[in-house]
Amino acid sequence: MSRFRKWRWLLLLVLLLLVLAVAGFVVWAGTGPEPMPEALAALQSDDAVQVETEPWLIFRPASDEPVTGLILYPGGRVDPRAYAPTARAIAEEGFLVVIAPMPLNMAFFAPDRAAEVMAAFPETEHWVVGGHSLGGAMTARFAHQNPGAVAGLALWASYPASSDDLSGNDLAVASIYGTRDGLATGDEIAASRPLLPPDTQWTAIEGGNHAQFGWYGPQSGDNEATISREEQQAQIVDATLRLLLQLDE
Amino acid sequence: MSRFRKWRWLLLLVLLLLVLAVAGFVVWAGTGPEPMPEALAALQSDDAVQVETEPWLIFRPASDEPVTGLILYPGGRVDPRAYAPTARAIAEEGFLVVIAPMPLNMAFFAPDRAAEVMAAFPETEHWVVGGHSLGGAMTARFAHQNPGAVAGLALWASYPASSDDLSGNDLAVASIYGTRDGLATGDEIAASRPLLPPDTQWTAIEGGNHAQFGWYGPQSGDNEATISREEQQAQIVDATLRLLLQLDE
Repeated sequence: MSRFRKWRWLLLLVLLLLVLAVAGFVVWAGTGPEPMPEALAALQSDDAVQVETEPWLIFRPASDEPVTGLILYPGGRVDPRAYAPTARAIAEEGFLVVIAPMPLNMAFFAPDRAAEVMAAFPETEHWVVGGHSLGGAMTARFAHQNPGAVAGLALWASYPASSDDLSGNDLAVASIYGTRDGLATGDEIAASRPLLPPDTQWTAIEGGNHAQFGWYGPQSGDNEATISREEQQAQIVDATLRLLLQLDE
Repeated sequence: MSRFRKWRWLLLLVLLLLVLAVAGFVVWAGTGPEPMPEALAALQSDDAVQVETEPWLIFRPASDEPVTGLILYPGGRVDPRAYAPTARAIAEEGFLVVIAPMPLNMAFFAPDRAAEVMAAFPETEHWVVGGHSLGGAMTARFAHQNPGAVAGLALWASYPASSDDLSGNDLAVASIYGTRDGLATGDEIAASRPLLPPDTQWTAIEGGNHAQFGWYGPQSGDNEATISREEQQAQIVDATLRLLLQLDE
């Protein structure tokens, strides 16, 4: 066993470095920006929208039983609550909206989470999946890996990975992006055209950036928006509602 | 040699992990935000300010020979050019301003760089060092490690490390911070008071944030400013000039 003892430190060092690398990633993933106060306020139930926060963030219109539901995946490192005002605004128009929290706030680790949500709401007839940035890319992956499972896809400052070609799918798609986005640039959005169906609805938000798709404050590498967060959010909600209304008989 | 051969893979794995960790850091450090167009424009010489970009970013007032100079260290991961408009505005008032680029854009690796700059301008009588965020902390380290070398210290959204106590130093200090800074918070700035001389000039920029100390766009973890970058910059320049004028006989 002397050989083992002699080299044991090396094995321990490998383990230590691996643990450090994993710990570094976990800390990095978990230290994204905090949701803004407006986001936390939007989690309160009121006369128009009933909100539950377990096991997902669920926004139910109080008015009538929704026929169509939207499942949202958050952007990478973004707290799911940062999309609460947007989800609430869409629910106010009569849609079920569910924001799916992600392991380590990285939708990459659970692209199939939409399936769990859909199973929990059997009465919902039509489903749209969508998300911001990495979240949108992972809903595109879900749609690609589960053809027929959803009727629509809403991409917010996002696009499918090249391995998730949806151009031949029977899927209503809305791609919504800001012209001042420093992270999902116009060139990247344009390059995603061949991966999406020909009748995809493209919405360019003039002066919008990456961070204003959510409510978590500024983001490194982004450009400054030339429109307010409220104005950008109104356009995001409008374009997403257009997709949902199209599926809502 | 069979023992060595047997464990060689482990040694290689350790080296690989170390190389990966270092490479990851280098990539992270080198992929900070780009300077805004305004920053690049401020690097052009004109009738008021002569600009050189080697070996540092040097801003010389065209009017007269400056008696007092300011050496600026950039914030962590920030391109030194992102402070060019601020440096130019200060130089326009008759001061030599030198922005010191840093290894990997991390002032941590070269807190003594001010000494090289000072040696290159022997005709300058009074020196102030200062910087943004990590850069400011490293100028405080320089002042601490080289007592008497500089007459003043300008901290922009920054404070000394607890090991760099300057409270007993004969040093004119200006601490300038934004009330909406999400990265160098008011609490952190307040906690630095015991480390700075009692006659330190404190300037709170109402509504200012962290990223608007430079010209590199938004920054993760920051709050949104409630004043414009131009307004915040004007207050930074004013408060820094107050310190420089005090030393300028």
